[in-house]
Amino acid sequence: MRSVVVSKDELRDRTAVVGVGFTEFSKNSGVSTAALAARAVQAAVRDAGLSMTDIDGMVSYSVGDSTEPRMLAPMLGISDLKFTNHQAGGGVVSHAAVGVAMMAVATGVADYVVCYRALNSRSEFRIGGKGRAPVDRNLEMQYRVPYGWFTPPQDFAMAARQHMLRYGTTSEHFGHIAITQRDNAVLNERAMMRQPIDMDTYLTSRWIAEPFRLLDCCLEADGACAIVITSSERARDLQQTPVLISGAAWGQGNTMISGGGQDQSVSGAARLAPRLYAMAGVGPGDVDVAMLYDCFTYTVLVQLEDLGFCAKGEGGPFVASGAIRRDGTIPVNTHGGFLSEAYIHGMNHVCEAILQLRGDGGARQIPNAEVAISTGQPGVTSGLCSGLIFRRGR
Amino acid sequence: MRSVVVSKDELRDRTAVVGVGFTEFSKNSGVSTAALAARAVQAAVRDAGLSMTDIDGMVSYSVGDSTEPRMLAPMLGISDLKFTNHQAGGGVVSHAAVGVAMMAVATGVADYVVCYRALNSRSEFRIGGKGRAPVDRNLEMQYRVPYGWFTPPQDFAMAARQHMLRYGTTSEHFGHIAITQRDNAVLNERAMMRQPIDMDTYLTSRWIAEPFRLLDCCLEADGACAIVITSSERARDLQQTPVLISGAAWGQGNTMISGGGQDQSVSGAARLAPRLYAMAGVGPGDVDVAMLYDCFTYTVLVQLEDLGFCAKGEGGPFVASGAIRRDGTIPVNTHGGFLSEAYIHGMNHVCEAILQLRGDGGARQIPNAEVAISTGQPGVTSGLCSGLIFRRGR
Repeated sequence: MRSVVVSKDELRDRTAVVGVGFTEFSKNSGVSTAALAARAVQAAVRDAGLSMTDIDGMVSYSVGDSTEPRMLAPMLGISDLKFTNHQAGGGVVSHAAVGVAMMAVATGVADYVVCYRALNSRSEFRIGGKGRAPVDRNLEMQYRVPYGWFTPPQDFAMAARQHMLRYGTTSEHFGHIAITQRDNAVLNERAMMRQPIDMDTYLTSRWIAEPFRLLDCCLEADGACAIVITSSERARDLQQTPVLISGAAWGQGNTMISGGGQDQSVSGAARLAPRLYAMAGVGPGDVDVAMLYDCFTYTVLVQLEDLGFCAKGEGGPFVASGAIRRDGTIPVNTHGGFLSEAYIHGMNHVCEAILQLRGDGGARQIPNAEVAISTGQPGVTSGLCSGLIFRRGR
Repeated sequence: MRSVVVSKDELRDRTAVVGVGFTEFSKNSGVSTAALAARAVQAAVRDAGLSMTDIDGMVSYSVGDSTEPRMLAPMLGISDLKFTNHQAGGGVVSHAAVGVAMMAVATGVADYVVCYRALNSRSEFRIGGKGRAPVDRNLEMQYRVPYGWFTPPQDFAMAARQHMLRYGTTSEHFGHIAITQRDNAVLNERAMMRQPIDMDTYLTSRWIAEPFRLLDCCLEADGACAIVITSSERARDLQQTPVLISGAAWGQGNTMISGGGQDQSVSGAARLAPRLYAMAGVGPGDVDVAMLYDCFTYTVLVQLEDLGFCAKGEGGPFVASGAIRRDGTIPVNTHGGFLSEAYIHGMNHVCEAILQLRGDGGARQIPNAEVAISTGQPGVTSGLCSGLIFRRGR
C-alpha cells in the first residue's frame, strides 16, 4: 500500500469517454424519462462497442424530474452495479456527474460507468415552473417569493443587468451569442431550432425577464444523452477514438442570497477556472472548442471572461468580433447549445465536446480540435460550478 | 503518471474518520434541517479539533427532505468547497455517502470532507407518509398503489413473512432484536427510548403491517449527525483516535418489482458482503461490533445471515441465543439503533461505529472493539445496499 494519497495530478488523462448516445430531442417525447434514459444509455453503450453487461456503474443527477440508476439499471438488465451516484442538483452539478464517474473508474471502484441525463422538461416538468419539486430550493425561496422572485431567468437577469451597467455590455452583444449558436444549430441534425436568425429577429423577440428576451433563454426540451467512461488503458482497445478526461473540477460557493453583497457580474467560473486548468495542465489558449453552459446568452458571455478567453468586461466586444464563431479563435457551443439544440441540462454539451474531439462533428466539425472545455451552470455571485477539460486520446 | 488505475486495495485504510457530531434527537426539533445540519457539522469539526475553514468537501443525501451542501456551506462561512455530492436517495445510499467522501479524499480532490444527514422526519417530512416528494419512487408507485402498497413497512413485511414461512422465524425472534437494542439504548444518553421493554411489551404492541408491530419499526425522529473524513496520514496528527475506513462498497440491484420473482428472504447484503469484506481484507469473524440498518427488526435478522454472522435461515435462533447482546459474539446496534436511539437514516450507525472503535462508547462500550461494520438499508430481493468496515487506527 502506498503511504500517500493519490494526487489530483494522477487523475489527469487516466480515464476516458468511449461512447456517446442520444435520443431525439423534442417538445414532447411521448414517453417517460425512464424510456429516454434507457434509449440514450443503450445508444452510448452501442457507440462504445460494449454490451450492457459490461456496465457496472451509473451516474445521473436531477432536480426531482429524472429516473434514478436504481430504476434504470434493472430496466436494462443490470442487476449488480458496483457504483451508483444520483445527485440531487441541476446545472451546477451537471459536469460533476462526470467528475464523480471519473473518480469511480480511477479508483477501480467500477470499470465502465455510464453518465446520463434524461428529462421531459418541455412536456412535463418545467424547471422553475409548474410541477417543480416542492422542497427544491425552498430554504432560499422563502426570502425570494415575497418579492416576486421565482425563476432562473430572474436570477441571471440581475447578474446580466449588473454586467451591462458596469461594462457597457449591450443587448446586441447577447444577440451575437444567440445568432452564432443558431448558425451552428443549422448544421446539426439533432438541433430543435434550425432556422437562421438575425439581429432584428433577436431584438424583436419578446421579453422574458429584462434584459433577457425569448432568444436569450434555453430551449426546455424532452430528451436524453449518455456517455460511457472507462480507464484510458481499456479505452485504447475500444472502437472509438478515446477522449481523455484531463481535468474535472466542481464545488459550491455562495448562493445569490448568501453572497448578495458581492459582485454579481463575476460568475463561479472565475473561481473554478484555475483549479480546472491546473488539473488538466492547460490554459485557455490551449482550448480548441468550448461548450459553455448557456441557460441564457449572458452565461456564455460571463464565462468567456471568467474562464480567461478574454479580459474581464470584454465579453461583449469579444463575441461581437466573431471570436466564438466556428471560424473564430474559440468556437463556442458548436451544437447550438441549450439555446438552439436543446436543453439537456449540460450532458449534451459533454457529448458535443466528445464528438468534436473524435472528429465526429459532421458539417459543424472544428478542424483539428484536440482540447475541449465543457462547463456546468456558472453560479451567480461566486457560487461555483462544474467543469471538464477533454483531450483527444490519439 | 502511473500507467494503471489505482486499485480498490489501495483505498483500504487510506482515509479515516476524525470527528463525529450530533444534535439532540427529538420528536420536534423546532428548527429547520439546515439548523440541525449546521449544528451537527459544527460539533463534528470541533470534535476533530479542526476549524470550519479546513473543510473543503461536503456530502449528504436525502429523500427530498434535507439541506444540501450548497445551502449549508455558506451558512457555515464556507464559500469554496472543492467537493460536493448530495445524493438523491435514502437508506440504501446512506453509507455510500461516506464511500464517496472516501473517494474524494483518497484521490486528493478534497482534504477534509464532512458527511452529514439532517432530518425532521418526525415533525415534518414522514418518509412514506404525508409530505413526501411527489416524484419519489413514482416509477414503481404506479404499480403498487392500486394494491394499497404504499409504505416501507409494507415492503419489508412481505420479506419478513417469507422468511418466517421458509425458515420458521417467529415474532419472538423479532422481539429479541427490539429488546436487545432497547437494553443498549438504556445506556445511551442520546437515545430517545430508554425504558426497558420485555417480550410481553413487544408482543402486545400494536400492528403496523403484519408481521411488524410498533416495536419492530424505526423511530422517525428529528436530528442530525455528521462525521469528518481526511487522509489517514493527516489523521495521525489530529486529536482523536483515527478510525480508518477499511472497506466501502455500495451499488444497486433489482427493485422489489423488477426482482419480484426472486427469493425475498435474501437481502441485498448477500451480494454486497463479499465485495465489502474483500476490500477491507477481513471476514465476519474479525468484526467486533456491528451497526446494522434497522428500519425494522427483520432487516437486522436477515443481515446477520447475509453478512455471514450466522448461517442462512438461522437468524432467529441466533438472536434468541443472545449473540447480538453487548456480551454476545457480535454486539449489534450498541446505541439502540433506529428502533430505540433515533432514525437518523444510517448516519447515526456510522457515528456509533466510530465511537465504539475510539473507545468513546461510555457505559455501552464494547471492550477492545477494533473492527466495526456498519450498513445501509439492505434492499429487498437482491437490491444492493451500502456498507462500511472501520478499523481502529492506533
